[in-house]
Order: sequence, then structure tokens, then C-alpha cells
Amino acid sequence: MKVKPLADRVMVKLEKSEAKTAGGIIIPDTAQEKTQQGTVVEVGDDKEVIKVKAGQKVMYDKYAGTQVKIDGNEYLILKMADILAVIE
Amino acid sequence: MKVKPLADRVMVKLEKSEAKTAGGIIIPDTAQEKTQQGTVVEVGDDKEVIKVKAGQKVMYDKYAGTQVKIDGNEYLILKMADILAVIE
Amino acid sequence: MKVKPLADRVMVKLEKSEAKTAGGIIIPDTAQEKTQQGTVVEVGDDKEVIKVKAGQKVMYDKYAGTQVKIDGNEYLILKMADILAVIE
Amino acid sequence: MKVKPLADRVMVKLEKSEAKTAGGIIIPDTAQEKTQQGTVVEVGDDKEVIKVKAGQKVMYDKYAGTQVKIDGNEYLILKMADILAVIE
Amino acid sequence: MKVKPLADRVMVKLEKSEAKTAGGIIIPDTAQEKTQQGTVVEVGDDKEVIKVKAGQKVMYDKYAGTQVKIDGNEYLILKMADILAVIE
Amino acid sequence: MKVKPLADRVMVKLEKSEAKTAGGIIIPDTAQEKTQQGTVVEVGDDKEVIKVKAGQKVMYDKYAGTQVKIDGNEYLILKMADILAVIE
Amino acid sequence: MKVKPLADRVMVKLEKSEAKTAGGIIIPDTAQEKTQQGTVVEVGDDKEVIKVKAGQKVMYDKYAGTQVKIDGNEYLILKMADILAVIE
Repeated sequence: MKVKPLADRVMVKLEKSEAKTAGGIIIPDTAQEKTQQGTVVEVGDDKEVIKVKAGQKVMYDKYAGTQVKIDGNEYLILKMADILAVIE
Repeated sequence: MKVKPLADRVMVKLEKSEAKTAGGIIIPDTAQEKTQQGTVVEVGDDKEVIKVKAGQKVMYDKYAGTQVKIDGNEYLILKMADILAVIE
Repeated sequence: MKVKPLADRVMVKLEKSEAKTAGGIIIPDTAQEKTQQGTVVEVGDDKEVIKVKAGQKVMYDKYAGTQVKIDGNEYLILKMADILAVIE
Repeated sequence: MKVKPLADRVMVKLEKSEAKTAGGIIIPDTAQEKTQQGTVVEVGDDKEVIKVKAGQKVMYDKYAGTQVKIDGNEYLILKMADILAVIE
Repeated sequence: MKVKPLADRVMVKLEKSEAKTAGGIIIPDTAQEKTQQGTVVEVGDDKEVIKVKAGQKVMYDKYAGTQVKIDGNEYLILKMADILAVIE
Repeated sequence: MKVKPLADRVMVKLEKSEAKTAGGIIIPDTAQEKTQQGTVVEVGDDKEVIKVKAGQKVMYDKYAGTQVKIDGNEYLILKMADILAVIE
Repeated sequence: MKVKPLADRVMVKLEKSEAKTAGGIIIPDTAQEKTQQGTVVEVGDDKEVIKVKAGQKVMYDKYAGTQVKIDGNEYLILKMADILAVIE
């Protein structure tokens, strides 16, 4: 299954946040801060608006986008305007 | 009865979500996650805005659109802008 | 009394929803789902926006428009933008 | 005292709603439905927007406009956009 | 002290509302209806928007503007768009 | 330390409100009305929008702007649109 | 790790607020006022909108932007429009 975002949307694969503290204690899911980072996997076809490309790591606005689960991985479909920065 | 969406609207037939867990237990309706996926069945006539066509599978924004029941099937009439991605 | 909607507005006669179940039990008014369907009876004169005409059956956005009662019948005065689809 | 509405505003004289039931029982004010009908008495000078004239009966959006009391009569100063329909 | 409103703003001197009933009973302040009438005393310099002039009596939108007290008198600084009508 | 407001913003030094009544009684801070007056000290460089200059006394919209404390004095950084009037 | 803000966004390094009173008493975190000051470290590439550059101290709107923690330091990714003033 391939998901192709439309127009000014970008699909981002979420990073699994490290679920252990420095001392190795496992943190349950709700106690973890959302990372707000991910890797672009697909972009829409609005070339004038889209300024990122597949493979780039990005930071995005908290609460932005729609979460999607595909084959056990979590993705976020975001508008380009909700992407704050590229991580180099 | 044929329903023809107007302007920038798209009519999507909702997928029946799988109501059984892997172990075969039936999940009552309220415990199921909304799928947010469906198949386009009709599109409005705003050619400049409409970028999907009948037969395509799409993902859409949660809470978007107006639900309609025709002959026992559930449909959603959405604005094109609420369609996030095409599933290929 | 003739009511002529203005500009981009459309006047729709509401269908009386079937107040009996299959088994013939009468459902009191508050337990019935609003139908969201009606027949266009008059349209405003904004030709560029108005895309429906008298006699057509239409579906409209829930909660849209202003309800009006004329000679015991119920009507809704809607903006064209609140009409979702034409029923053919 | 003459009140001249400005720009795209219209002044409407409210109809006194019939305060008796068919059987002649007087209904106290709070139990009456607001009529949402009135007669245009003055219009602003924005000729491009104003599409009604003094003497016409109109229906208007519930909760629209500002109520004004002049010499014991009740008026409503509305924007043209809040007038739904003309009653002929 | 002279206060000169800016751009599309208008300064209106509020009328002291009659604080006695017909029978001469003094009504405490909170029981009085706000009059929503006043006399224009100064206007901003946005000639295209400002359609009233000093000396004219006007009606304005309830809750509009910012109240100002100068030398014991009450004034309201309003946007032109909040002025509903001129009283002639 | 010099603070230079950007674009259409204006920096205003707040007046210390008189904290004594006519009889000389000191009023604690919370019982004082906010003055909404101040003196312009710096303006942004958006010449087309900025219509006030340093030294002018102005009135501004209640709750507008961001308060800043510099060397024990209180300032407000406001958008030009939140300045209601110039006091001459 | 280098974070490059997009379009009209600016990345600001927050100042550690002085956590001691004049008398040397340490103030716990929640009792400190947010400083709303920081130093620009990176800017987006929207040259027409961006009016600050790396190294400049700026004041910004309370509650604006998205907080980011990199290598133990706190940063804020802001839209240019949320930067109120430059501190010289």
C-alpha cells in the first residue's frame, strides 16, 4: 500500500521515541514527550509550496496533521505550513 | 437514487471496518477506530479543484464532511480540501 | 404569500420524514433523525452562484439555513454553499 | 425623529406578533416565537449592495441586527446580508 | 485636553440617559438601558470611510468601541463601521 | 538598553496612574483603573502604517499589546491599529 | 545537529532567566516570569519577511512559537510576525 499525499501535504514517518531513561528504566507511553520529529517519506505535487523532499528530517507543529498507521508504523500527513524546520 | 455532489465536493463510500480482532473477537461499534478511508464514487464539477476520480481510494480528515446513508451503505460528502491522500 | 430568497439563497421545502418504523410504530418527533433532504422551490437571482433550480431534490448541510413555516409547511432558506448534492 | 441607516444597512419595522391563540387566549411575550418578519422603512446609500426598498416585507436572519425603539415602535437595523428573502 | 481619533475612528459624546421614570422615580444606574446614542465630536482622517461629521447624532452597535472619560464626560471611540445610523 | 519595535509596532511608556484619591488616600494597585494612556517612545519602520511619532500622547485599546518592563519603567509594545487616538 | 527554520520562521535561543533574587535567594522555576527575550540563531529564507539576523537580541510575543530542546539548550521557533522588537 502506497499513500500519496495531495496538493500541499507532506507525509512524515514518526520516530519511535526512546522509551528508556538513561538508567534503563522503561517509560510508559503516556509519560513520554511527543518528539515532533520525523522523516519525510512522500510529498504532494504543489511544487510552489512544498519545500522539503523525501529523506529529509523535519520538525513540525505540535497537534498538526492527521495520524495514520500503515503496516504497524506511524505516519503523519501534514500541511507544508505546519513544518517548522529541517534538521541537517 | 443517484446523488451528485456539487462544486468542489466529493462523495466517498466508507469501508466497513473489520469488526473482529485477530483472535476473532467481535468489537462493538463504539470501540472501533474510525477508518478515515473510503472509495470515491462521485465528484463535483469544479474541475480545477477536484483532483481525484471515481474508483480511487482516499484518506480524509477526521470529522470532515457530512454523512449520508443510501440503501444501507454509508457515504461521506467531503470538500476536496478535506481529502489528505490517495491510496495506490 | 410568496417568499423570494435573495442573492445566493435557495428556498427548500422539507420532506416530512416517515414517522413510522417498519413495524408501524409511530416515532415521536424528537426521536427522528433530521432528513437533510428537500425540494428546491425558489432560488435567488445570483446566477453565477446558484447551480440548482426549482423542482430539484437536494441534500444540505446539517444545521445550515433558517427555518420558515408557511401555511403549515416547513421550508429552509439556505445559502447555495450549504447545498451538498443534487439527488437525481 | 428620523433615523437614516448608513452604508449597507436597512431599517425594518417589526410586526407585532399576534398575541392570541386561535381560542383567544393571550400569550405572554416570552412564549411567542419571534416572527423574523418586518417591513423596510429606510435603507442605507450603498446602492450596489442594497436590494430592497421601503415598503417591502422581508424575512431576516434570527439574532441579526440591533434593536431600536422609536416612539413606542420596535425597529431593527440590519445589514443587507442578513435579509434572507422578500415576501411578495 | 483634545483627543483626536485616528484613521477610521469616530469620537462620540454619550447622552446622559434620563434617570427618572415618568412618575419621577430615580432609576439607579444599573437598571437603565444603555442608550446607544450620542453626538459625534471628532472624526479620524480616513476621508473615504468616515461618513459622519461633528455635531451629528448617531446610533451605534451595542458593546462597540472603547469608553473614555474626559473632564467628567463620557465618550466612546468607535470605528466608523460600528455606527449604524444617523438621527436627523 | 534600547528597544526598537518592528514593522507596524509602536512602543509606549505607560503613565503611572495617580495612586491617591482627592482626599489623599492611597489606592492599592488592583483598585485602580488602567489608564490606557501613554507616551510614544519608539516606532517601527513601516512608514505607511505608522501615524504617530515619539513624544506624542496616545490612547490605546484595552488589553492590546505586550507589556515590557525596562529599568523599572513599564512599556507596552502595540500594533499601530490598536492606537485609538492622539491626545493633543 | 543543525536546525534550519523554514520560510518566515526564526529560531531564537532563550536566555536562562536569573534564578536568584537580589538577596541571593534561589527562585524555583514556576515563580519566575518568562523572559520573552532571546538571541536569533537561525532564520528562514523568506527574505522579504525576515527582518532580523543571527546574533540579534529580540523580544517576542508571549505564547508564540514552538519550543525545542537541543543539546540541553532551549530554543523557540517563531514566525517573524511574532517578533515584537529588536534589543540594541
